[in-house]
Amino acid sequence: MEEQANMTRGPMRARAYGVTIGTMATGQWNALTDVPGVRVGQCTVAFGDGALAPGHGPARTGVTAILPHAGNLFHENVPAASHIINGYGKSIGLVQVDELGAIETPILLTNTLNVPRVADALIDYMLTVESGIGIRTTSVNPVVLECNDGRLNDIQGRHVRAEHVHRALADAADGPVAEGSVGAGTGMIAFGVTGGIGTASRVLPQPHPRYTVGALVLANTGRLADLRIDGIPVGRELAATQGEWAAEARDGSIIILLATDAPTTTRQLGRLARRAALGLGRTGATASHGSGDIVVIFGTHAANRIPHHPPLPVRMFEAIAEDGPLISSLFAAVIEATEEAIVNALFAGDGTGMTGRDTYRVPGLPVKRLLAILRAHAYGFGPGAPPVGAE
Amino acid sequence: MEEQANMTRGPMRARAYGVTIGTMATGQWNALTDVPGVRVGQCTVAFGDGALAPGHGPARTGVTAILPHAGNLFHENVPAASHIINGYGKSIGLVQVDELGAIETPILLTNTLNVPRVADALIDYMLTVESGIGIRTTSVNPVVLECNDGRLNDIQGRHVRAEHVHRALADAADGPVAEGSVGAGTGMIAFGVTGGIGTASRVLPQPHPRYTVGALVLANTGRLADLRIDGIPVGRELAATQGEWAAEARDGSIIILLATDAPTTTRQLGRLARRAALGLGRTGATASHGSGDIVVIFGTHAANRIPHHPPLPVRMFEAIAEDGPLISSLFAAVIEATEEAIVNALFAGDGTGMTGRDTYRVPGLPVKRLLAILRAHAYGFGPGAPPVGAE
Amino acid sequence: MEEQANMTRGPMRARAYGVTIGTMATGQWNALTDVPGVRVGQCTVAFGDGALAPGHGPARTGVTAILPHAGNLFHENVPAASHIINGYGKSIGLVQVDELGAIETPILLTNTLNVPRVADALIDYMLTVESGIGIRTTSVNPVVLECNDGRLNDIQGRHVRAEHVHRALADAADGPVAEGSVGAGTGMIAFGVTGGIGTASRVLPQPHPRYTVGALVLANTGRLADLRIDGIPVGRELAATQGEWAAEARDGSIIILLATDAPTTTRQLGRLARRAALGLGRTGATASHGSGDIVVIFGTHAANRIPHHPPLPVRMFEAIAEDGPLISSLFAAVIEATEEAIVNALFAGDGTGMTGRDTYRVPGLPVKRLLAILRAHAYGFGPGAPPVGAE
Amino acid sequence: MEEQANMTRGPMRARAYGVTIGTMATGQWNALTDVPGVRVGQCTVAFGDGALAPGHGPARTGVTAILPHAGNLFHENVPAASHIINGYGKSIGLVQVDELGAIETPILLTNTLNVPRVADALIDYMLTVESGIGIRTTSVNPVVLECNDGRLNDIQGRHVRAEHVHRALADAADGPVAEGSVGAGTGMIAFGVTGGIGTASRVLPQPHPRYTVGALVLANTGRLADLRIDGIPVGRELAATQGEWAAEARDGSIIILLATDAPTTTRQLGRLARRAALGLGRTGATASHGSGDIVVIFGTHAANRIPHHPPLPVRMFEAIAEDGPLISSLFAAVIEATEEAIVNALFAGDGTGMTGRDTYRVPGLPVKRLLAILRAHAYGFGPGAPPVGAE
Repeated sequence: MEEQANMTRGPMRARAYGVTIGTMATGQWNALTDVPGVRVGQCTVAFGDGALAPGHGPARTGVTAILPHAGNLFHENVPAASHIINGYGKSIGLVQVDELGAIETPILLTNTLNVPRVADALIDYMLTVESGIGIRTTSVNPVVLECNDGRLNDIQGRHVRAEHVHRALADAADGPVAEGSVGAGTGMIAFGVTGGIGTASRVLPQPHPRYTVGALVLANTGRLADLRIDGIPVGRELAATQGEWAAEARDGSIIILLATDAPTTTRQLGRLARRAALGLGRTGATASHGSGDIVVIFGTHAANRIPHHPPLPVRMFEAIAEDGPLISSLFAAVIEATEEAIVNALFAGDGTGMTGRDTYRVPGLPVKRLLAILRAHAYGFGPGAPPVGAE
Repeated sequence: MEEQANMTRGPMRARAYGVTIGTMATGQWNALTDVPGVRVGQCTVAFGDGALAPGHGPARTGVTAILPHAGNLFHENVPAASHIINGYGKSIGLVQVDELGAIETPILLTNTLNVPRVADALIDYMLTVESGIGIRTTSVNPVVLECNDGRLNDIQGRHVRAEHVHRALADAADGPVAEGSVGAGTGMIAFGVTGGIGTASRVLPQPHPRYTVGALVLANTGRLADLRIDGIPVGRELAATQGEWAAEARDGSIIILLATDAPTTTRQLGRLARRAALGLGRTGATASHGSGDIVVIFGTHAANRIPHHPPLPVRMFEAIAEDGPLISSLFAAVIEATEEAIVNALFAGDGTGMTGRDTYRVPGLPVKRLLAILRAHAYGFGPGAPPVGAE
Repeated sequence: MEEQANMTRGPMRARAYGVTIGTMATGQWNALTDVPGVRVGQCTVAFGDGALAPGHGPARTGVTAILPHAGNLFHENVPAASHIINGYGKSIGLVQVDELGAIETPILLTNTLNVPRVADALIDYMLTVESGIGIRTTSVNPVVLECNDGRLNDIQGRHVRAEHVHRALADAADGPVAEGSVGAGTGMIAFGVTGGIGTASRVLPQPHPRYTVGALVLANTGRLADLRIDGIPVGRELAATQGEWAAEARDGSIIILLATDAPTTTRQLGRLARRAALGLGRTGATASHGSGDIVVIFGTHAANRIPHHPPLPVRMFEAIAEDGPLISSLFAAVIEATEEAIVNALFAGDGTGMTGRDTYRVPGLPVKRLLAILRAHAYGFGPGAPPVGAE
Repeated sequence: MEEQANMTRGPMRARAYGVTIGTMATGQWNALTDVPGVRVGQCTVAFGDGALAPGHGPARTGVTAILPHAGNLFHENVPAASHIINGYGKSIGLVQVDELGAIETPILLTNTLNVPRVADALIDYMLTVESGIGIRTTSVNPVVLECNDGRLNDIQGRHVRAEHVHRALADAADGPVAEGSVGAGTGMIAFGVTGGIGTASRVLPQPHPRYTVGALVLANTGRLADLRIDGIPVGRELAATQGEWAAEARDGSIIILLATDAPTTTRQLGRLARRAALGLGRTGATASHGSGDIVVIFGTHAANRIPHHPPLPVRMFEAIAEDGPLISSLFAAVIEATEEAIVNALFAGDGTGMTGRDTYRVPGLPVKRLLAILRAHAYGFGPGAPPVGAE
């Protein structure tokens, strides 16, 4: 297999089986793209088999691009914030995001050692967006985040090239988002099974305004035994009998991207970002020593876009009032969306699994067995649940 | 009822019912006091009934004191760190803890508006420990943390007086720790039921050295519907039929105190502290807007005590090597101990409940019913589980 | 002498001698109170002489109160931020300021061990502002900062009582601010001479909007030999011949309060606050180990006040556009105002000095000699300069 | 001119003219390399003249490499910390430095848009140091910092290639360090004149142990009018008559690298790093909006190196005792070394200046005139001062 464009895998998501995380309603696609204007594009880079010399493959990697809005991001930044749960990570761009509370490029996800090449390609892209960068205007701050896919992927090879970055950017679309072993998620492992890209969203209930919170994760974290699905500690039973499965302990990381159309200040975005740790905690993850568990959030509320060349010395913007239940509902939305995005990343691997470097094989989540365990625990399946015995 | 000394309530803890959070072993007392040298003392301040004029009661409050070691804390500080999950809180002392990585006083817990009076009484106490403070030596940094017990307690009255602080300090002991509505926990509400003080501990498994992590929480957070016990989302069912229970939404806070005898730097302690958020997340808490969710951790390893007047310009320290599974095991211990400490705070309220200001009544956790729900979900009870049907 | 109300000392400020820090224009009073609506009140607590038993005096201390606006601060908060240059300090309230980006009480300055008593008195005051605190509404977050006046003052005595706090609050006024050994500054020592309260302001030049930045410091930091006045390293010469002066090395701290009427977000306020370190650096201070060098800033722009009970779920804000020279001019204003406020704190001590605990005497800045040194260095005096030879 | 190897420019440093910043003694070379084991290598990339098409030159850029010790950095990390004065910067690597308190690669400086390419080349280099990266061991965290040389340099061209990085690394040596427009400093502008690389060091005086603090800056910050040399505000006079000079306002950044052989924890290193802001303040810099003013510090004390594969679960290390004057002396050393390193970066440009993109010309610091101004202000020249009238 050569490089592949955006490809939907694992059409069945958690909710399709009646696994309904939390209590809030989802957006139309139950995806980051439910936040109006947000687009996601991916390019999978997968080729080669077996044991090639380091630097030559096999490749199980890629790039995932998140575009906060469809306009010119350099000329119209979005407010943003970040939160480091554990900083064993090699991202680029967060120093400036924290200082200015703004993002001026698409956000790219890839693997650890690809970060520089992807960032360099992102600079190329930005020069097509604004040719005056570094000459007639400021420089540019590329934002690239990563997890380590080195168990399945020949990471030394840094196989993501500029063309893959540009393909992922060109692929950006709203609507459904491919999940699992796709784009930057191609070689990722979470809770002992294939992980990678997962997404989910929440819409605030009445009487709140109809704000949306979206989450997209690059899931590469967690031990199988620790896995909790909507609370149920299924990992203990899954791990007890994993048999053929990868038994080795896993460190690993997670990138959590959040977006909301609620009007917010960057301080408020930071508060939302910090809630992602609670959603991560619900899945049973422990943010082990070697994890780069990093949250980035941006706001899409149109009135709050930040012009690169502001026409006036003072700007107006809007933000939710904090002393009331509204912001706490946004917090809850972040937690639920984060939790479900992780679960969706796992469900996407059902029936596939991934074989990579040195013929190392990682199974996909055994969804049938998982559902059986949930049923044995009288899990309160939602409307999509399969009939009893169907698994 | 007048002020009361340390009083053990709720003798049955989660583990006594077979509710066995996580997988790691506990210390002897399953308490913060399992970390050698750590002592806990409490003084409950509870008097008055019904609707008194603001400032006159009823009192449902108190103070809880944690002493990191039995020596002179001012002359031998302990390494320490803090982490703010959400900073809607009025603690005192953390600025210096973060700068110096050290604690030089007992750590006191109380309610929000009592913080100044308790800190002032702690200064009095420290002057008895070292009479030269502010004259022949430096000043002193009292560390006091708080949650808001204003729903049950006449918080305007600031009913904790210096004598209560000194009584709590004098009460400090190792061994079992009273939980629930005691000391600073007296008027606290968590997950819609009485909360307050809870504690737990974990001991690292072989082949790690036998290090202990202890947690003690002042739990005043959470909505009943969100409650998860060892993952099982029992809160949904408890809330659906709570009937007589307090139905109103609750904001609220949590203070999480951690200690370990593992040799650590303050940076490492900070890493441990940040994992408490994952343990909090496992319980279903969401760190709502109005929460002061604050973690403080200290290390008790004898070789790492910090002398106030160091005899030499250079000191030797010990610290765990980080690139290996040891620190990740400490992370897991923090997460499990935090989760179980919260659960223990709830279990302690079984059968009691608390009536406070304006005759407002908060029930205790209905343990029998909770156990029935767990059983209905085929929860994997541990050895202490009651026989089927016993509830 | 018994406790004293606000008393202007050292009528001659640096500018009156032609010592003109920086290049930007000052506001009307060259004080924090040039920021419209800001008021300052002080109460000096000074009594007793010589060597009294610890706890009995002599008192050389007090309280200084800053009120961000004349309205109800609890119902209309001001946006705020803080920055810790060195955290060896015992302030209360900053955790919540950082989380919410808001201040809801007057800001009080006092000495280290008085912080709890002053905070408790501030709670009393706030209960008169809003009787429902902790009952019908939230609790309250008192903000109190401090430096250590223990060399001159009997700090163990904690001589600031509630009445002094209330007197300082009642004394609050706009217009000129008493400087030097007054209020919280009474017992403070900076650069080997009496320090304490100092203030200054800057007004942005055309073509910027006419925004004001004000600074008020509680200066208790610096070694005489390090002192630089508008750059000129006068301290070397002053220290070389200090003769009768206090020769001992000094640690010490500084609190820097900033305010501006420029419309800003709390993130922007944080950026301004961080510039205060550059102004501090210009004076030659080194933020030694034992310093609590803390910056707090608030914004007074009327449209950005934060209602405690917001009428609508979304609020409108105004904030300066950042990509342009405006915010950098505000940075420069912070730096200059901070530098001059410190210098003013020193100048206020000319001819007075202070005798305190154990008859320890601290001289005031010898202004005449200082001016001679400046003249010898061909310092570019501004309009207020005395004629040559006048010193 | 084509790319050039390390080339010493501006042989006369500030001290050679008797400009003696501060009071502490310097190390042998008055350079970062006075910290035992630290080596610096540089590669200047300069070619082309006049107005070429963007992306084609002229190049006025390069790379500067700092190697904390001569051993295998990946296998033996050094303790480290960072501090952000203003975060308008595009560095890579600091997230992990902050989490682990360790650096495992050489530290590279370059320009803003070169960061990704330089980081990618650094990964190549690290794979030669340890071939198992990402396969048999962890990944690697390249640390690259930058300033924007886009006024003189064709920054869009990203003219630093992997070979330049490797040449800078191969060039690393102890002893004197080339300053000014060399390596990463080639196209930098500070205080309106050529800036770039500058370095200095301080040695603690008796009775302290003989610890060294070294600083190396990439100076690209400051307005000429603000410049203070050892306090004296020379910039006002220089700017008043700058005539032919670049008149335009400058934003700009500074990278400050610090090293010490004093035994320290990473928390202590962080405290040292924060003092660099005070040294920066002394020069008159204001950290304007567009500045990436970033401090990175590492410790070289041999006993504190951090093995990648620790042989035992617990390590011993050493750290200075904090409650005493030792750490404050290290703070003072940081401040003085930072201040002098910036001044040295300026002095290195005397008589040269730089012409770059679009034939834009930046003069070097007019040292003769500067000395005349200092003399007119009766500056206390040190031993190297030229005889009166010599300028």
